[in-house]
Amino acid sequence: MVTKSFDYINRNKARFLEELQQFLKIPSISAQAAHKDDMKLCALWLKNHLENIGLDARLIETTGHPIVWAKAKGQSSKRLIIYGHYDVQPEDPIDQWQSPPFSPDIRDGFIYARGATDDKGQLFAHIKGIETLLKTAGQLPCEIIFLIEGEEESGGTALEQYIKNEKANLSADAVVISDTAMYDENTPAITYGLRGIVAIDIILKTASHDLHSGVFGGAIGNPVTALAHILSKCIGTDGKIQIPGFYDQLRPLEDWEKQNIQKLAFDDNKLIKEVGARKTFGEPGLSTLERIWARPSFDINGIFSGYAGKGMKTIIPSSATAKISIRLVPDQNPHHIADLVTQHIKSICPDFADLEIEGPFAAAEPVLFDVNDPMIKAGHQALKHAFDAEPVYIRCGGSIPVVNTFWQQLKKPVILMGFGLDSDGAHAPNERFKLDNFINGTKSSAYLIANI
Amino acid sequence: MVTKSFDYINRNKARFLEELQQFLKIPSISAQAAHKDDMKLCALWLKNHLENIGLDARLIETTGHPIVWAKAKGQSSKRLIIYGHYDVQPEDPIDQWQSPPFSPDIRDGFIYARGATDDKGQLFAHIKGIETLLKTAGQLPCEIIFLIEGEEESGGTALEQYIKNEKANLSADAVVISDTAMYDENTPAITYGLRGIVAIDIILKTASHDLHSGVFGGAIGNPVTALAHILSKCIGTDGKIQIPGFYDQLRPLEDWEKQNIQKLAFDDNKLIKEVGARKTFGEPGLSTLERIWARPSFDINGIFSGYAGKGMKTIIPSSATAKISIRLVPDQNPHHIADLVTQHIKSICPDFADLEIEGPFAAAEPVLFDVNDPMIKAGHQALKHAFDAEPVYIRCGGSIPVVNTFWQQLKKPVILMGFGLDSDGAHAPNERFKLDNFINGTKSSAYLIANI
Repeated sequence: MVTKSFDYINRNKARFLEELQQFLKIPSISAQAAHKDDMKLCALWLKNHLENIGLDARLIETTGHPIVWAKAKGQSSKRLIIYGHYDVQPEDPIDQWQSPPFSPDIRDGFIYARGATDDKGQLFAHIKGIETLLKTAGQLPCEIIFLIEGEEESGGTALEQYIKNEKANLSADAVVISDTAMYDENTPAITYGLRGIVAIDIILKTASHDLHSGVFGGAIGNPVTALAHILSKCIGTDGKIQIPGFYDQLRPLEDWEKQNIQKLAFDDNKLIKEVGARKTFGEPGLSTLERIWARPSFDINGIFSGYAGKGMKTIIPSSATAKISIRLVPDQNPHHIADLVTQHIKSICPDFADLEIEGPFAAAEPVLFDVNDPMIKAGHQALKHAFDAEPVYIRCGGSIPVVNTFWQQLKKPVILMGFGLDSDGAHAPNERFKLDNFINGTKSSAYLIANI
Repeated sequence: MVTKSFDYINRNKARFLEELQQFLKIPSISAQAAHKDDMKLCALWLKNHLENIGLDARLIETTGHPIVWAKAKGQSSKRLIIYGHYDVQPEDPIDQWQSPPFSPDIRDGFIYARGATDDKGQLFAHIKGIETLLKTAGQLPCEIIFLIEGEEESGGTALEQYIKNEKANLSADAVVISDTAMYDENTPAITYGLRGIVAIDIILKTASHDLHSGVFGGAIGNPVTALAHILSKCIGTDGKIQIPGFYDQLRPLEDWEKQNIQKLAFDDNKLIKEVGARKTFGEPGLSTLERIWARPSFDINGIFSGYAGKGMKTIIPSSATAKISIRLVPDQNPHHIADLVTQHIKSICPDFADLEIEGPFAAAEPVLFDVNDPMIKAGHQALKHAFDAEPVYIRCGGSIPVVNTFWQQLKKPVILMGFGLDSDGAHAPNERFKLDNFINGTKSSAYLIANI
């Protein structure tokens, strides 16, 4: 079955690519009202395409952009959900594109277009994988449900609501998502862990209005002084978070993970060069991958108070705000951590300042899948055979809300098999997707479903 | 001579007030290009007025607004310079004025208009004081030079340049300035000290561009973390400045000053209420007046980095800036202090951040005049007889650049005799000047010059 399907994919490469180009031509920018009709058009195009392949497909209307739902029956009672999104980021800055963002251009082994990697190209690999199995084997070995949303790039909640409401109809053995990246150009990867997140705003006030620093300097408190002391007691310059109890629920890395990180031999110097930093940062005695994958982080996303213009304005600002987000790792609970942080800040806030804490916002639990789970292993095998390379298991320091939603609602593993590359430029000008990865992604999808 | 001149002032009150109204009607807003002609008109009006009184008056053209120069000969070789400014603040917010800002309105014993107290009203008291002496005694006992600038409210440097260039022609026994305030409604005051100032910007960079906090959080440094640690090591929550050597050049309060502060019995509760603070702030064991008048302050005027909008943006900002100004007291030198602060910050800056310090800006030395100087004493006596109340000696936490310029260039005391009140609303809507203070100010000026 695998040989037959890989042959089919090799024979139909050119047509697959032509169809992907049609898909990429539709400017489905979900964040821009001007593209509302394009969003509808794109959803309809997908629905028709899935129907033509042989799936039962529908548009599910929402208060925002429609969800494309599609189903293909299987021979067994097993079921996979394949998630993807058909909306794309805005094309700005338009003048930095070498070819127009919605006129897909093929050069140097890549297809260049907005959405090429994020996520139309990666999603389309699965669609072509399903087509392959249907055309070569007649019926799928397991049932497939596609859930393709149109609000991923604009923070919509329609899919989350749908999953919660339709939970009973969505029971599945696993969810498959291709919206991440390979470890590097030659190494496919299964992402088995994501950090969680929780965010708060800290607002300090010391007066009802900005004060003249000559008249009041040294006699009325400055909210930035208070905020600086608070923040300096939340995180040390050595990267250690100083909130009591913060590290209490940390699950240590397993031995195989430590060995895995060592084997991956992450290149700190390359990272430093890429981001323009003086050095890496963080808790002493840990490697960069350990810090990003398996340790929480306390990130000050923004701070503002008083005068920010040219020259000087000699004031004592009346208030100061810091916007904080905290990345969480198992087994930290976002609400518990938000409570710890709030308590700590309250306990150290100088008495000359009024303290207000807003949030928590965006509470998402960290997720960690068992790499020994047969479904995760099946994803690993699929990548191995399709890419003809040994895939690695990696974690990701970011948070993917939809993964959290699936995990919370269905309690089944999410197979995160990324076909993209970090250098594909998702969200940037000249976004691209490597043609080989598109084809190998299609093979991965076919292999996974054939062998589930 | 005093009785004669006070009688003259009492008899001419109504006319003085009419003339002040004419002066206040001219919208001489130096900061707004649309009022350039009004500035010229105002300068001409002053020149004519001074000529009509009997002075030799000229406009001194500058690259900005003209300086009004005027001279009245004296019987002795003594000479006083009287400084004032004819420009005013913009009238915004216009809708909060009860009567139009440039249609002076007399009600409840006050004259309401933009510039009423700052500085047309206070300056005009001196002009009427000179007129009084010329009309009642024929010739002044000492020579008077008026230097009246048009750029005080817009940060111009024309007068500073003029004083530096004409230093040789400006030798004088003292400078008189009425651009400050009385201690309270019933207590006239001589301001004998001003704090100095120096300002710097601290800029920290940890990356060449903002980074995704999921991908890099905990592995690349955050410039706000570095800045918070630096600031928290510059000033404690107890108000103590923690920069080595910072307090080394501090001249302690003299015994009479300590007693004076005790006698003034400053009301902390009133201050707290006025500014909407929880409590006063500052170095332990010191009173509020001591903190404001005789201790330096480290003021964070502004801080900004990263995201300041609604909701959240999960980034590690690439840079962070803090705008700092430092109020200085004798015998601190602004450049030396800027060096100490720079050295300290450099020595504590975490190694993951690039540090840049801009400045120093606006370096002005603190000034402190000897209250036993005969000229300062003469000012004190003038206020005492004109206001029929015992004046107090006060310092001011702010800095008045022109005082510094006079002191630096002429090395003679500046008699800061304010006729205004803190409640006059300088720079605010419904600016006003108490009619009694205008008349008593006129008497103060006549008394001072008659008794120099």
